[in-house]
Amino acid sequence: MLFISFEGPEGAGKSTQLARLAQRLQQAGVSTQVTREPGGTPLGDQLRAALLDPGLEVAPLAEFLLYSASRAQLVQDVIRPALARSKVVLCDRYADSTLAYQGAGRGLPQAFLQDVTWEATGGLRPHITILLDLDPALGLERVAGRGQKDRLEQADISFHQRVRLGFLQLASGEPERFLVLDATQNPDKLAADIWQAVSGTLGML
Amino acid sequence: MLFISFEGPEGAGKSTQLARLAQRLQQAGVSTQVTREPGGTPLGDQLRAALLDPGLEVAPLAEFLLYSASRAQLVQDVIRPALARSKVVLCDRYADSTLAYQGAGRGLPQAFLQDVTWEATGGLRPHITILLDLDPALGLERVAGRGQKDRLEQADISFHQRVRLGFLQLASGEPERFLVLDATQNPDKLAADIWQAVSGTLGML
Repeated sequence: MLFISFEGPEGAGKSTQLARLAQRLQQAGVSTQVTREPGGTPLGDQLRAALLDPGLEVAPLAEFLLYSASRAQLVQDVIRPALARSKVVLCDRYADSTLAYQGAGRGLPQAFLQDVTWEATGGLRPHITILLDLDPALGLERVAGRGQKDRLEQADISFHQRVRLGFLQLASGEPERFLVLDATQNPDKLAADIWQAVSGTLGML
Repeated sequence: MLFISFEGPEGAGKSTQLARLAQRLQQAGVSTQVTREPGGTPLGDQLRAALLDPGLEVAPLAEFLLYSASRAQLVQDVIRPALARSKVVLCDRYADSTLAYQGAGRGLPQAFLQDVTWEATGGLRPHITILLDLDPALGLERVAGRGQKDRLEQADISFHQRVRLGFLQLASGEPERFLVLDATQNPDKLAADIWQAVSGTLGML
């Protein structure tokens, strides 16, 4: 019924805010499906392990195709069926991450990324995308405490700055879909802003 | 220096003929690199396991993107470096398999498959493609003795008939690249025909 994605750099608090929104929806009696990218299916979980393995050599193009494969499976097996059962779907990262990380970050051609993404998703876009915007230096500091860095976290800071810019450009191109929030704000304030946007949209449905 | 792919349905004898050609090239003092798809790199080997696992649900589009990811990595890390070092590269399956299996077989749109394949390979095509053509019923009978069937082998016979037709159509479109051989012939005869074509091309280089 309603498809909501959470986007933003490492350490922006996506998973925390997604969990809070899921809890609030459930408390309001709204049937909710939580999922994530890469992953969310048995195939996606295998690909997630490969994609985040810092010891595995993965070319930028191969990386992009793996994210797209995981997404194609997730859309077919999880997201579309849940939407068809009138659920609210909350997804931790979706296609915008690909355009920001593999496009703006790695420099792969945007038109190609968009064509493949369109095919892989059958054109399915989120109704609402919550972008938790954050200076990447701050985000990486936040995740530094989590133990060994995965491959994306290991990339240099200029890569992460390009990714941030990529997200902001996507948001500016589709202001009706994106809710851009300053991720340095108090988590309670963020959760309240997200709930306001989501409950408002649900009220209109 | 020279890039040769082996194509054809299951059980056509690709691996056998590839090994015989590799041996003959080495005996002739030609530096040779043998590889295969999916696989050939650490990433490709992980993807191969997922692609051939009969217990894992893989959508046709995801399957295609995984083959393409494996190919992108293989071209970058193995095939191009070997060609740059003046080797003869022998590859057990390459892009034509994708066009035949995922295009003709699964019915994914050819133009999309070709666009992604072009990007994934940077336009790299084999100089010679040896197509071992075989009635799929016969090929599947041949592989039946090998133990548990992988996912592609489990597909029904009409799928494999579409794949065979797909290969033959690709060959008829590029007769200068394809050597089409009747795979029911004696293996020694096949090996001799392949050697004649390859040694002839090497003589011209």
